[in-house]
Amino acid sequence: MKVTILGCYSATPRTFTNPTSQVLEINNHIFLIDCGEGTQVELRRNKVKFSRINHIFISHLHGDHFFGLVGLVSTFRMLNRENPLHIYGPKGIKEAITLQLKLSNSWTDYPLHFHELTNTDSELVFEDDKVIVKTIPLQHRIYCNGFLFQEKLGDRKLLISKVVNYDIDKAYYKSIKKGKDVVLPDGSVIPNTELTDDPAPAKSYAFCSDTRYDEDKISLLNDVTVLYHESTFLESHKHLCQRTGHSTAIEAATIAKKANAKNLILGHYSTRYGNIEHFREEASTVFENVVIGDDGKVFEF
Amino acid sequence: MKVTILGCYSATPRTFTNPTSQVLEINNHIFLIDCGEGTQVELRRNKVKFSRINHIFISHLHGDHFFGLVGLVSTFRMLNRENPLHIYGPKGIKEAITLQLKLSNSWTDYPLHFHELTNTDSELVFEDDKVIVKTIPLQHRIYCNGFLFQEKLGDRKLLISKVVNYDIDKAYYKSIKKGKDVVLPDGSVIPNTELTDDPAPAKSYAFCSDTRYDEDKISLLNDVTVLYHESTFLESHKHLCQRTGHSTAIEAATIAKKANAKNLILGHYSTRYGNIEHFREEASTVFENVVIGDDGKVFEF
Repeated sequence: MKVTILGCYSATPRTFTNPTSQVLEINNHIFLIDCGEGTQVELRRNKVKFSRINHIFISHLHGDHFFGLVGLVSTFRMLNRENPLHIYGPKGIKEAITLQLKLSNSWTDYPLHFHELTNTDSELVFEDDKVIVKTIPLQHRIYCNGFLFQEKLGDRKLLISKVVNYDIDKAYYKSIKKGKDVVLPDGSVIPNTELTDDPAPAKSYAFCSDTRYDEDKISLLNDVTVLYHESTFLESHKHLCQRTGHSTAIEAATIAKKANAKNLILGHYSTRYGNIEHFREEASTVFENVVIGDDGKVFEF
Repeated sequence: MKVTILGCYSATPRTFTNPTSQVLEINNHIFLIDCGEGTQVELRRNKVKFSRINHIFISHLHGDHFFGLVGLVSTFRMLNRENPLHIYGPKGIKEAITLQLKLSNSWTDYPLHFHELTNTDSELVFEDDKVIVKTIPLQHRIYCNGFLFQEKLGDRKLLISKVVNYDIDKAYYKSIKKGKDVVLPDGSVIPNTELTDDPAPAKSYAFCSDTRYDEDKISLLNDVTVLYHESTFLESHKHLCQRTGHSTAIEAATIAKKANAKNLILGHYSTRYGNIEHFREEASTVFENVVIGDDGKVFEF
């Protein structure tokens, strides 16, 4: 599982800091999460292949999370994209994008599917044989969702020496990996656990930006491998959190701790601060495995 | 008169090239012309004060000319702008911007005035005591206008030694600068031309992007000080001009020559070319005073 931070600063794009966008690679999928202005340039800078992006998840319709989307949708057309593109985001996102395409008389030549979200409870928004994605309702100034990406457990691992030893025909390997026992010609049964190991543990990634401190979401985040949680403010500006709908670094760390997350990535920093290392310092007083997200950083788990 | 090129490449923003936007400083005004994605970052990079931008002119609603506008409008709000902002552009621009502001629940706190254009003939869109701005109807794939910015002739220049010599009271200086003659106490008349010199010649700037080769606009451009004219293609791709609604470097130079322009700036290059110097080479076979626009270049006239 790999996370590439394209941008993780709040409010406006600036010369050396980008608004929110990140790329999650999980179980052979590439998901784009949020799409602030400048995202398509950051995708190029970070050498993410445009053609591999088929699903885009937008948390909410503040500009620093979606003003880059219409440009990316248009660029896909200019690059002669043919694959369908799926966009998941709050109701209204379809009108915002299609109005601008209509005004520019530049409809896409590829299928463009909008999955508009209105639910304030967590819901399943994507599922295939590899990954499922659920929303994480967040408490912000406008309707806002985080997203929980969960790998599905893979097949059991075949112990080659064992199956060779029993002289089991290869035709049975697939069913053995699915957990089936084997019945030998003499009628004796070899239990599956003797022929296989457990599959690699399923990993998960939770994206939570933007949100007030809110313990309601902890049950959704339980045991998550990686939690990306916004930390717009340091303790010195904690009084701004309620009104602006944001969290401090310590609040992000508290959520990580209470959810028993394995790792925490911080981001969505207010641009008022000179040194983002202070966010790590404050968060680490509560939760140990914390790292500082920053534009262009790549994390592998 | 000063022109700062923020971006002058066609189609999509890329790592080192920006879509169209430029800043024109003329007679103490600062005008922003077009606003592709990334414009607000380029404004910062080129140290243009956001607070001095009160008028934005948008040629047409293709993304590479206006996808950066909504972000800039939002950023103005976050910077606590109070001055009114005037936006001139094709009908539909108001809906595109206000819909996105509405979805983000982020109405501007400053007065935002849209001047929507539908006229296919040239029309006056701005006038004060210093500058007038007219549209230049262009031939593109969708409704599109260039803009002609003309300084107004300033006051006549007072010849101080002369007015002192005649012992003329300072109270008359203003009317003399406006061209009035002076009547002395003895009834004799001193003609204005004896007391003043001609004012500095008025400069003008014409922005023409995007357009096919079209001689209809030449009458509007006559004797213009500086013509910015798009040159998307070199001669080798001239066959693409008609379908795409663009011009070659030689066509841009031909318009400059026929309009008796004093200077020509090229731009809006297709990103298929490695070396934009070829645009200057081809254009200069037709028109001598040609320069290559490029992101971050500043021209003074």
